[in-house]
Amino acid sequence: MTRLIPLMILIWFVSCQKPNTNLPISGTLSENEKIDSTNIKQFFNTALTQGQSYEWLRDLTQNIGGRLSGSPEAQKAVEWGEQLMKNVGMDSVWLQPVMVPHWVRGDKEVAYYTVNGKRKNVPVCALGFSVATPKNGVTAEVIEVKNLAEARALGDKAKGKIVFFNGAFDNTLINTFSAYGGCVGQRVRGASVVGPFGAVGVIVRSMTNSVDDYPHTGTMGYGDIPKDQYIPAAAISSRAAEQLSTDLKTNPNLKFFFKQHCQTLPDAPSFNVVGEIKGSETPENIIVVGGHLDSWDLGEGAHDDGTGVVQSLEVAYLFLKNGIRPKNTLRVVFFMNEENGTRGAKEYARLAKVNKENHIAGLESDAGGHTPRGFSIDANEKNTGLLQSWKKLLAPYGLHDLLKGGSGADISPLRDDGVTLVGYRPDSQRYFDYHHTSRDTFDKVNKRELELGSASMTGIIYLMDKYLYQNQTVKP
Amino acid sequence: MTRLIPLMILIWFVSCQKPNTNLPISGTLSENEKIDSTNIKQFFNTALTQGQSYEWLRDLTQNIGGRLSGSPEAQKAVEWGEQLMKNVGMDSVWLQPVMVPHWVRGDKEVAYYTVNGKRKNVPVCALGFSVATPKNGVTAEVIEVKNLAEARALGDKAKGKIVFFNGAFDNTLINTFSAYGGCVGQRVRGASVVGPFGAVGVIVRSMTNSVDDYPHTGTMGYGDIPKDQYIPAAAISSRAAEQLSTDLKTNPNLKFFFKQHCQTLPDAPSFNVVGEIKGSETPENIIVVGGHLDSWDLGEGAHDDGTGVVQSLEVAYLFLKNGIRPKNTLRVVFFMNEENGTRGAKEYARLAKVNKENHIAGLESDAGGHTPRGFSIDANEKNTGLLQSWKKLLAPYGLHDLLKGGSGADISPLRDDGVTLVGYRPDSQRYFDYHHTSRDTFDKVNKRELELGSASMTGIIYLMDKYLYQNQTVKP
Repeated sequence: MTRLIPLMILIWFVSCQKPNTNLPISGTLSENEKIDSTNIKQFFNTALTQGQSYEWLRDLTQNIGGRLSGSPEAQKAVEWGEQLMKNVGMDSVWLQPVMVPHWVRGDKEVAYYTVNGKRKNVPVCALGFSVATPKNGVTAEVIEVKNLAEARALGDKAKGKIVFFNGAFDNTLINTFSAYGGCVGQRVRGASVVGPFGAVGVIVRSMTNSVDDYPHTGTMGYGDIPKDQYIPAAAISSRAAEQLSTDLKTNPNLKFFFKQHCQTLPDAPSFNVVGEIKGSETPENIIVVGGHLDSWDLGEGAHDDGTGVVQSLEVAYLFLKNGIRPKNTLRVVFFMNEENGTRGAKEYARLAKVNKENHIAGLESDAGGHTPRGFSIDANEKNTGLLQSWKKLLAPYGLHDLLKGGSGADISPLRDDGVTLVGYRPDSQRYFDYHHTSRDTFDKVNKRELELGSASMTGIIYLMDKYLYQNQTVKP
Repeated sequence: MTRLIPLMILIWFVSCQKPNTNLPISGTLSENEKIDSTNIKQFFNTALTQGQSYEWLRDLTQNIGGRLSGSPEAQKAVEWGEQLMKNVGMDSVWLQPVMVPHWVRGDKEVAYYTVNGKRKNVPVCALGFSVATPKNGVTAEVIEVKNLAEARALGDKAKGKIVFFNGAFDNTLINTFSAYGGCVGQRVRGASVVGPFGAVGVIVRSMTNSVDDYPHTGTMGYGDIPKDQYIPAAAISSRAAEQLSTDLKTNPNLKFFFKQHCQTLPDAPSFNVVGEIKGSETPENIIVVGGHLDSWDLGEGAHDDGTGVVQSLEVAYLFLKNGIRPKNTLRVVFFMNEENGTRGAKEYARLAKVNKENHIAGLESDAGGHTPRGFSIDANEKNTGLLQSWKKLLAPYGLHDLLKGGSGADISPLRDDGVTLVGYRPDSQRYFDYHHTSRDTFDKVNKRELELGSASMTGIIYLMDKYLYQNQTVKP
């Protein structure tokens, strides 16, 4: 029998050979494209064998951890980022001061309700910017709605009640961000809709594709309603939401209790961290690449957005390591306060305008550190077409998506007719398993996927640097 | 400040909108393609909202676990598979008897070496089909090589030594299966090369992209060498391999110890599990879809290949659930013994020939359960072109790769000029973190990624069923 094994293995081995997507594409490439193909391959080779992003991320997530705007950890992250940019060898590194909102969670939240004499504990967390409950919590009957429209129709029925927003993700949407977009309004505006009706609290089904036991925090706001109509708002886990919905059918008068201690303190000083490599030909033109340094407090801010931060710096590292100097100035920015205010983004854009800086392009990574899928492009028709023409150079790395779409919260304030803004789009399937929860931790990030992302971003920055500036009229 | 929040959120929200890849493509579709697009979308909708594969996989991995050929667990898996196929409502379900190799690991392996008075324990596991060490283990000096060519050149230098194969994955290869292909020869044939030189053992660096602490098992063979030249072969973790290589530089005479108790028992009876839905128009034509039911013993056989098994059955489930009857007969096969013998595959192909069955196509899922990327196609030019013409129907689901390549170990024995064989190709980046280790467990599988795979497979089976048979001459 053992004599047969080598033959069997050979058959198996030959049959197992997978399509080779490992070489730079060949065939119908122009001379210029051949150079580009070789350089892009070199970025990938360097990232996959000498990449630093994974260890940077380990450091940020394990030694600092969650870093909500205004927290001591956010300040540590600023110092960490500044030092790291210097270590990488950026030409210059500086901090941009910015005042940020300072919301704190306080003690761990508690929620439960009782049906048939049995107490059911509910995984819960306060939403960012929510007010606290009274010291002893809120207890009230629950009224369930599926969306803001149903909530708006409640009127007096909401009085004295806790309004339960139970709209679930549409799991048939392939891109999970679209499902998020369809639901997140409940979280953001729920309290501002039902506070004026006299509701005493809001609980929101967590923003996730999964049915699990983790509450997902995230930002909310009270809009223009008077302060005395502010009511506490919390997220409960998706499984608890399904159970509560079931229990309400047989026990419509059950009382729900929750308690939270969060508060909004005065704005706090913080910083964007900025580093740049001066351009060799047209240094007055700037290409910016960034992610956000702040994160929610429940996890370690790994996929949101530690990965975007370390990938953005790795773009600069890969240029430097390969001795390829950008023609335009390459600026790496670790933005502060994306999660609850985007103050850093606005300050960066304001200063760019004040200083008459000429941004020709921007790239943001804030959709997780999963395996690369492509980029979304927010640019004029001409530049969109130019970027899409690079498809054959990018496809060997799984970068097939080059669609029109938004770029990201931190660079979109730079939007202007001549500016090409791009969002890095990794695979989205797992993202909302972790997003804004205690599960957004380092161990959920795969080293190769992270590095492939860094190299993908470097590839498109390289192409934009080489080809966009030729099409760009420098502003006076 | 809070007045600003809704505006900030709105800006953030709009800027966060991701490209919409959620709708069936539109534009230049023919009437037929519109029907196809709608049906494929329906398969995805059903998989993502009523899919069963994840719970089936939970059952297989948590209640049965690892299921090496010939083991009691493999037998339980056969019974599980037969019952499950009946539950799903296949028209007929049967078992194909097949004798399989029966190798057993025995007690946990041990390995260590001592440098500067300090004992270093080494994570180790025997390779499949390896002989045991003597009862008290093997102790010998180590000679390191990077590949089979270096091993072949050793000659007498290997005498009395443990040969250490330390060829690492080429991490610059984007498709990790290509890196595996470049290394796995060490594991498969290493002992057959150095046994005749008088080496006393083989240790092989684990087949992985990572540097970690998990030994990866896998099959090996002794080829045609005489039985008295059989030497024990084991895998050590990649981190231990790097450390050993470092230590050998300063301590070239260090002695390595390992002990393992594995043995090959007489062949054991087992089965392929087969179920089919009769075709509505040309039932004599068969399309087969499958994965392998056996797995290595160290983990739970989740990604290898529990995912392929449950996805294959979910193809049938999605046809049935949507009331779409295949025109040709759709046959689901859970193959036995892919890991160490492919006896099930050969028996299936043998019976197909004996019974003059007309297989027109086959699809195998045995590359993990990660997010879909596409398919590799092993077919004649005409059918390859036909499959590639479906790109616009498949691209909305991230299925961009439609390249020529191998299909899979279990269906490749069906290879014939008219037969179209296809391998399902999910993303490969994480696969070799788990492959053949104790980490290949249920928790590494993402529900949506698994379901997207099932639907992807159903989509291409649907298209092959509809269009291939028209091009297929039924054999006499």
